[in-house]
Amino acid sequence: MTGGRATSPAADLDAERVARVELARLFEPSNASVTQLLRRMSGVELMARLRADPTAEASLRQSASSARLPALDAVRDLERAARAGIRFVIPGDREWPRQVDRLGHCARADRTDWAPWGLWVRGPMRLDELAGSVAVVGSRSGTTYGLNLAATLAAELVRAGHPVVSGGAFGVDAAAHRGALAAGGRTVAVLACGVDRAYPSGNEELLKQIRCEGAIVSEAPPGCAPMRHRFLTRNRLIAAVTRGTVVVEAALRSGALNTAGWAAAIDRPVMGVPGPVTSAASQGVHELIRSGAASLVCRADDVREVIGEVGAFLPAPLRGPEQPRDALDDAQRLVLDAVPAERGAAAEFVARTAGMALTHTRTCLEDLARLGFVEFGESGWRLTSLALR
Amino acid sequence: MTGGRATSPAADLDAERVARVELARLFEPSNASVTQLLRRMSGVELMARLRADPTAEASLRQSASSARLPALDAVRDLERAARAGIRFVIPGDREWPRQVDRLGHCARADRTDWAPWGLWVRGPMRLDELAGSVAVVGSRSGTTYGLNLAATLAAELVRAGHPVVSGGAFGVDAAAHRGALAAGGRTVAVLACGVDRAYPSGNEELLKQIRCEGAIVSEAPPGCAPMRHRFLTRNRLIAAVTRGTVVVEAALRSGALNTAGWAAAIDRPVMGVPGPVTSAASQGVHELIRSGAASLVCRADDVREVIGEVGAFLPAPLRGPEQPRDALDDAQRLVLDAVPAERGAAAEFVARTAGMALTHTRTCLEDLARLGFVEFGESGWRLTSLALR
Repeated sequence: MTGGRATSPAADLDAERVARVELARLFEPSNASVTQLLRRMSGVELMARLRADPTAEASLRQSASSARLPALDAVRDLERAARAGIRFVIPGDREWPRQVDRLGHCARADRTDWAPWGLWVRGPMRLDELAGSVAVVGSRSGTTYGLNLAATLAAELVRAGHPVVSGGAFGVDAAAHRGALAAGGRTVAVLACGVDRAYPSGNEELLKQIRCEGAIVSEAPPGCAPMRHRFLTRNRLIAAVTRGTVVVEAALRSGALNTAGWAAAIDRPVMGVPGPVTSAASQGVHELIRSGAASLVCRADDVREVIGEVGAFLPAPLRGPEQPRDALDDAQRLVLDAVPAERGAAAEFVARTAGMALTHTRTCLEDLARLGFVEFGESGWRLTSLALR
Repeated sequence: MTGGRATSPAADLDAERVARVELARLFEPSNASVTQLLRRMSGVELMARLRADPTAEASLRQSASSARLPALDAVRDLERAARAGIRFVIPGDREWPRQVDRLGHCARADRTDWAPWGLWVRGPMRLDELAGSVAVVGSRSGTTYGLNLAATLAAELVRAGHPVVSGGAFGVDAAAHRGALAAGGRTVAVLACGVDRAYPSGNEELLKQIRCEGAIVSEAPPGCAPMRHRFLTRNRLIAAVTRGTVVVEAALRSGALNTAGWAAAIDRPVMGVPGPVTSAASQGVHELIRSGAASLVCRADDVREVIGEVGAFLPAPLRGPEQPRDALDDAQRLVLDAVPAERGAAAEFVARTAGMALTHTRTCLEDLARLGFVEFGESGWRLTSLALR
């Protein structure tokens, strides 16, 4: 840090926090020039330069609103936020979710550094608890199928210890949050507006429950309105704070595909839950899977297998129902395979086909008849419907 | 060929055909020892040896029914078959579908050679027309969703010039055959019983239509009953005669997965059509896709892309509906992105956020209002529902 006085690390962190609040008020939180400058100097230094000469940093002239500089009062901002139960978490804080730092090396849309400067948080859940979290996102206009699925998947995930992160929107997002809450698990909504605002207002009750039991997170300072570009930069946080992103339902141009794109750009697994190919709401998901951008998942265990360290979690293999045939011994099976399905056959024919002695074949046929696999009718031995299942 | 007389290639082929009919009558057509011996000698030679000394080939003693040898009359067999419109096609015939020879190098179940010796065919379609064919297989107890899909997919495939091959069974198989026929295209049913038999008898009418417009194919000689092991060896032919196998619906232990396994074993593409994850009828398909054994396909174009030579066929990319936003120019979009979704804002705020001059911003706002994207209310400019779509 600059300055002659010796300061404690905690005091340094608080000074940096104040500076970053100021930057977040002066610029759009994902502003490329500020992000770049914060790689070369601290927020404290950057603010000092701007105060000394608002035109000092050429790259900021376009986007800075220097007129607002004198009006800044970040300390009061933080105090007011704290009274509303809102904190501003920055890199260096113990709570900082370090997995989002991966955004610092992410090439998208003419930029290579998308690291956030800080995150506003409202709720009891700490951001460093999100290391094993999973994003469940999808269409704002999900079908009943998609909404039920999102809720079930979220419930299964939180029960298995994976917090569920989503965007607080209508449809699949809301269903995922609700499923997680219903299972008594924790969930985080990352918003495009300030964490003090309930957007969409139709989800006000849900967002209230999330901030009481989990957390609401945003890069935009309190009071900020939801704007289109903020939805897109918000999506990168959902992808970066989680270990993998599951898209439940998404039409071909759904915003959920944008989140999937961010996840792919930082090498986090993208997963898709399939649906009927006749449903437009699943088309975007199917395209993700078809093109190889996403892997197919049907249930929480599949998700856990994909996001787990190699070998860390192997789900129980899916098994079909046990078949009655499983209980037969080798000779019985050989004989069964030699009995015709339709017109009956003599025991001699069955023995010849099975390549077995006639007496042994007869014993097996009688066993099989007792078990209900074959029957002896007018035309001889033939399979029953049980054997053909 | 052995023997002192000079023979024509056609006469050689017919002698070989007769010998192979005899072998097919004496042994199960997929018999491993016979298949192996046919690599070292012709069918004519093998039959000559067996006639001279039925115990000559030690490896055949177990499975041969030498008692039946004197009763053989393959020439009459072929004549009787011909009267019923049935022919026996063998390697060397111009009609022979050479893609099945790949089975000669296929390691499965303790064998490495699964090549068929010959195929019984009933119907006008020639087997060498199957080079670009696609297998559409699935559950015998498909859902309405699966049956509709199988029929639609088959119709699309035959319209695009790909004959559809399936197993003539109830459910998805029958739906695929019906879809192909309804589209006026050709379809082939590969059966586990003789081609003169209608199995399952409930599909008798369908099988009749297939043999009138396409072809019924089997490795088992006419008169042979459907038996369990013949279903499994039949599946290898469906996989081997086609360019790729599509599984439409399959529960976890469905026989259709056996066909998929054969296709994979000979490096032919396996594809799966997804369905609701809540449907047991799709579980087997989802497992295939999830494990990487199959690629996801939604429509015939997807199938054609998978089975095509690289670059030979690229489907038109799926596009979402055009969005109203697509028609805006850059300045209008910049302004639109700066208008809040919820509470309104003054034009000055929008201009500052967009980084544009106030007068230009005002013009854009008015354009956007005319186009229905924004509205000016009590609290200022805000987005309409159109803009949030």
